[in-house]
Amino acid sequence: MLHDSGRRGFRVLRPAALALGIAAFGFLALIPTASYAALNDETQFVLNSFSFLIWGALVMWMCAGFTMLESGSVRTKNASVICLKNVGLYAIAGLMFYFVGYNIMYVGVPEGGWFGTLTLFYGTTADEVTLLTSDDAAAKAAAGAAVVKNGYSTMSDWFFQMVFVATTASIVSGAMAERVKLWSFFAFITVLTAIVYPIVGAWTWGGGWLSAMGFKDFAGSTIVHSTGGWAALAGAIVVGARKGKFRADGSVKATPPSNVPVVTLGVFILWLGWFGFNGGSQLALGGAADAVALSNILANTNLAAGAGVMAAIALSRPLLGRVDLLASLNGAIGGLVSITAAPDIAEHYWAVVIGGVGGAIVVVGLMLLERLKIDDVVGAVPAHLFAGIWGTLAVSIAGGGDLLVQLIGVAAIGAFVFVASWAIWTVLKLTVGVRIAPVTEELGQDVAELGIEAYPEFVVLPESDD
Amino acid sequence: MLHDSGRRGFRVLRPAALALGIAAFGFLALIPTASYAALNDETQFVLNSFSFLIWGALVMWMCAGFTMLESGSVRTKNASVICLKNVGLYAIAGLMFYFVGYNIMYVGVPEGGWFGTLTLFYGTTADEVTLLTSDDAAAKAAAGAAVVKNGYSTMSDWFFQMVFVATTASIVSGAMAERVKLWSFFAFITVLTAIVYPIVGAWTWGGGWLSAMGFKDFAGSTIVHSTGGWAALAGAIVVGARKGKFRADGSVKATPPSNVPVVTLGVFILWLGWFGFNGGSQLALGGAADAVALSNILANTNLAAGAGVMAAIALSRPLLGRVDLLASLNGAIGGLVSITAAPDIAEHYWAVVIGGVGGAIVVVGLMLLERLKIDDVVGAVPAHLFAGIWGTLAVSIAGGGDLLVQLIGVAAIGAFVFVASWAIWTVLKLTVGVRIAPVTEELGQDVAELGIEAYPEFVVLPESDD
Amino acid sequence: MLHDSGRRGFRVLRPAALALGIAAFGFLALIPTASYAALNDETQFVLNSFSFLIWGALVMWMCAGFTMLESGSVRTKNASVICLKNVGLYAIAGLMFYFVGYNIMYVGVPEGGWFGTLTLFYGTTADEVTLLTSDDAAAKAAAGAAVVKNGYSTMSDWFFQMVFVATTASIVSGAMAERVKLWSFFAFITVLTAIVYPIVGAWTWGGGWLSAMGFKDFAGSTIVHSTGGWAALAGAIVVGARKGKFRADGSVKATPPSNVPVVTLGVFILWLGWFGFNGGSQLALGGAADAVALSNILANTNLAAGAGVMAAIALSRPLLGRVDLLASLNGAIGGLVSITAAPDIAEHYWAVVIGGVGGAIVVVGLMLLERLKIDDVVGAVPAHLFAGIWGTLAVSIAGGGDLLVQLIGVAAIGAFVFVASWAIWTVLKLTVGVRIAPVTEELGQDVAELGIEAYPEFVVLPESDD
Repeated sequence: MLHDSGRRGFRVLRPAALALGIAAFGFLALIPTASYAALNDETQFVLNSFSFLIWGALVMWMCAGFTMLESGSVRTKNASVICLKNVGLYAIAGLMFYFVGYNIMYVGVPEGGWFGTLTLFYGTTADEVTLLTSDDAAAKAAAGAAVVKNGYSTMSDWFFQMVFVATTASIVSGAMAERVKLWSFFAFITVLTAIVYPIVGAWTWGGGWLSAMGFKDFAGSTIVHSTGGWAALAGAIVVGARKGKFRADGSVKATPPSNVPVVTLGVFILWLGWFGFNGGSQLALGGAADAVALSNILANTNLAAGAGVMAAIALSRPLLGRVDLLASLNGAIGGLVSITAAPDIAEHYWAVVIGGVGGAIVVVGLMLLERLKIDDVVGAVPAHLFAGIWGTLAVSIAGGGDLLVQLIGVAAIGAFVFVASWAIWTVLKLTVGVRIAPVTEELGQDVAELGIEAYPEFVVLPESDD
Repeated sequence: MLHDSGRRGFRVLRPAALALGIAAFGFLALIPTASYAALNDETQFVLNSFSFLIWGALVMWMCAGFTMLESGSVRTKNASVICLKNVGLYAIAGLMFYFVGYNIMYVGVPEGGWFGTLTLFYGTTADEVTLLTSDDAAAKAAAGAAVVKNGYSTMSDWFFQMVFVATTASIVSGAMAERVKLWSFFAFITVLTAIVYPIVGAWTWGGGWLSAMGFKDFAGSTIVHSTGGWAALAGAIVVGARKGKFRADGSVKATPPSNVPVVTLGVFILWLGWFGFNGGSQLALGGAADAVALSNILANTNLAAGAGVMAAIALSRPLLGRVDLLASLNGAIGGLVSITAAPDIAEHYWAVVIGGVGGAIVVVGLMLLERLKIDDVVGAVPAHLFAGIWGTLAVSIAGGGDLLVQLIGVAAIGAFVFVASWAIWTVLKLTVGVRIAPVTEELGQDVAELGIEAYPEFVVLPESDD
Repeated sequence: MLHDSGRRGFRVLRPAALALGIAAFGFLALIPTASYAALNDETQFVLNSFSFLIWGALVMWMCAGFTMLESGSVRTKNASVICLKNVGLYAIAGLMFYFVGYNIMYVGVPEGGWFGTLTLFYGTTADEVTLLTSDDAAAKAAAGAAVVKNGYSTMSDWFFQMVFVATTASIVSGAMAERVKLWSFFAFITVLTAIVYPIVGAWTWGGGWLSAMGFKDFAGSTIVHSTGGWAALAGAIVVGARKGKFRADGSVKATPPSNVPVVTLGVFILWLGWFGFNGGSQLALGGAADAVALSNILANTNLAAGAGVMAAIALSRPLLGRVDLLASLNGAIGGLVSITAAPDIAEHYWAVVIGGVGGAIVVVGLMLLERLKIDDVVGAVPAHLFAGIWGTLAVSIAGGGDLLVQLIGVAAIGAFVFVASWAIWTVLKLTVGVRIAPVTEELGQDVAELGIEAYPEFVVLPESDD
């Protein structure tokens, strides 16, 4: 609950409520009273841990959402390889966060510091093992007390944090689709999930310097979504636009999604998963206050997404010349990203406003990127980076964050992630290369790099050069 | 738990069990006894609220199910626009239920009355805000006691009710696919979710006149599914059949689904979501009785769906001339809708019977609609309206409802929703129009209305006129 | 929690913790202490039951995963019929397990015996009905005490066990796709889910002879996955390879998946569902130890799947000649199946190792089956049978199982399921036939057996004979 002082370092056992509970049972048991019996420590422990796990499972599901969104958005000739990239990045993210990521982000981060320890592996505590396996009742009881005192189980927290790093990685794959080499992409994801994201996390949720300044980002508009967006932007610039996307005459070649129902499914998956993303970020389900906050979070998340959709529908007609389905779908994501920094606000109309602006930003952002000749296949940069910045600043309006601190956080994380990503992509470019060969790009990565077409039996139209 | 006296107005703190629990802890703590310690108030509060949220998230997922079912069922030329309709209706439903719907349905409905208040917005209570934000320990404790006494958090209930209105709206889009104008559809959905459905809800779950009569509809066979079905039927009649669907010679043009795996995915999503739909409608998870009821509900829901599938498979061969995949899939939905009015029955063979009959009704209903020359693209009317009526009446067999009262409820809600929907569609027809232009219908809404094809790279067969 | 002594017969009320809790509240209420208040009986009951239901719902979702995986893997001409098979098998599994399966598996299995009772139906207990419906407060309280003492509600356990038998059945459909008759397949599934799987279950989780020997299989690497795999293998052999799959010259015809994004979606669904599969198999959420175990289970499940993916990617290049997307996706499944026998190990690096080996086994197993000229359309036998055997034996390394006992379990269940399945398939072959007519096979089951094409509007390539 003490969310601001570190996403993991919180303590969920609330002495006040506990005393109240004890009093209610001990002295006042037979006297009707206005006060109420609180959850006891172990019940809190169970519910906190379960909350991490069940909402975390929904966040994992978001990786399927990104995969569907992306494989339906790319052209048929690159739909298989984007599936492999997404399955691979989720596997890599989980392994890297176990190997080193979690430790860098959360273990031993100095108060106001920059990063945690550089040790290998993270895991179940000795007390937890004793609780699970000891035959000595006294040892078991003592271990149990220590375990319960922590407020949640070690690996439930790890699981929830792990799916967040995977979300960050998912954002990158879409923007850079259809021209980045498979192995270079995996290499970048390895560094992103093992080091870059954990460092950003250490500054903030891990209790580092931005946390000490009072930077607020409840579920990660900046920490997750802008981080993924900056990494994607750097990659999109280094690897360059798809061949033929921006023509010599200044016009832009339309590259419509190849499979709209699959894209739509992806967006619904993301919308569902976001309940876990924002809801689980309450980090506790140990009492009435947590339950109330969780309820507000889910309501706000849904309202912001709905407002994002409607704003994008409304704006796409005048700005893009038609009711644009893809802008509308990205509007949902823009709304969701925007509310992610402060989904727990109690004035729900703010969620409508914040989400609506987020949806509008996506429509304008899509136009802006085309002007800048930056090729972002799925609109990840407008939806995750631009809306993420907006959401982080909007905390000052709705959630009480200090605007200057919010700006510092946005700028610092942006600078770090963009520069680090640029450097990694550039090193990869100069060594193994990041861009597929022109012939591979023309034939499609599925045939030329992977040997497996996405829709081998279907007759597809040859691509026209204009 | 006092489900019949209003879906929202229930009180979950059970004095008897509470006294038992207090006694167990206070006096009998050291004496082994047959009685048991009950959940305390705050634990009940947390679990009740969480139950609304997690099951509600699964109900939201049903909107993705409807979207897949529908976009796979329509012809490829209309698959994009149905995706946009479904994303849009979910956005609209959430916003409207926040703006006015919830208040009409639940706030200040007179005992036995017709509808609630016509105020704007619904939201977190002052006590909840105090609990979340106050620095005054005494104020916080007093607010907490008041919050906990309510049994669940305000917005957890809102969230759960909101996804139900979205389900109602989803039913309409499928039946009217491939010829209704996008903006007219959104206009209808706005009125349906802001006013029509909330009024039906006020009569029943809100504690209005049908509730006072003893009308029983646990999770909404009539309140949700028939309401959606009647609205869809009125719309399908006003907008008319698709061009060429019913030929001059009395024969019917087959319009098979364009993407069967996507349809199947939609049905699986609905089946999964229905566990939330029926399970969450227990409205509480605050004690052993709730947990037992919830378990029975999920078991019955699954049995009814399975029986619906098998009945439809068995019947489709003699009646439709083949093992009809779509009838089988709709059989699952028919079984699910049928059990929705009384999913908590303890005799589980009744679930098999009720669901099996529901599956059979769908097969016969599909034939009936074709005879009546009513064009329902996905079979929404047989699956949701016909099976919904059956399920509501079946409460008299299995769940102890008064048959006459059930009939009155079915008839009253049917008459209101059908007439109101007819009127709205007719007004729209006379003003902005409800039917797309013939050329749009021929080319498909995706190209002609939206400008985005669902499968732009795939070569599809030109439609034959017969 | 006493998992080894029977999956259902466990008792979740832990006297030690309970005494601790009582002590904490009774005597020590006002004295800060190292011990902690435990969950009371009813809270345990609610959380145990809910855990069965919510994780069980995720396991049901795995059936959608298998359906997508399979319908995307078969050729377009057989994609509809595989959808019908999967919807049908899930319906049948649920009904059969209600009619007879559960009773054979869990009710009255003699200590160390072979199977339970042969009675019809399973259901809510009389005490549960009394708790739900009685107006007599004393009778209700007494019934409630009896209900709570059971530790979980009757049908919550049934629901969770039911989705497991459905998983077993799902494994069969994929391996035998594209040539097995619809009705023969349904007949086999009926016997498999009503009798064969329940007998295997009685030997193990039901408390029968393998359980008495100390056989360990936490969530069913052998009991579920190998059982499905053996049944699939027997079926694949009896029904024979698809026409033209294995050529006279010894070469193998490639039959790539027809819809890769749909296959990928299926794998993500399975991965998500597996958190429920393994997590719910803790069978309780009644205290800190359960919560810790559950957290370890989800973390290990994810690590093993990720390692399986990466191992398969790494191995597919040297062994299969390319980075094989399908091998990689099956690698995830191989990793998941492998960890299923001991997902609760506290040393998480073992999960990485076990899952990685599982992924490697899938790649090698795919090659082996081709050598043996066994036609397994989706690779179900390598992923579920081979990896399942490995996972069951790996319990000896990581989870403390006796290797000899594990081998006996693998062999006994393998022999029984393979022989029984072979016999059933052979009886079906000699009576109604199991193989579709050659012309049906050539045209595809969708057109020739079902009359509904999966993608009727899409132009697909005619199949070449080589």
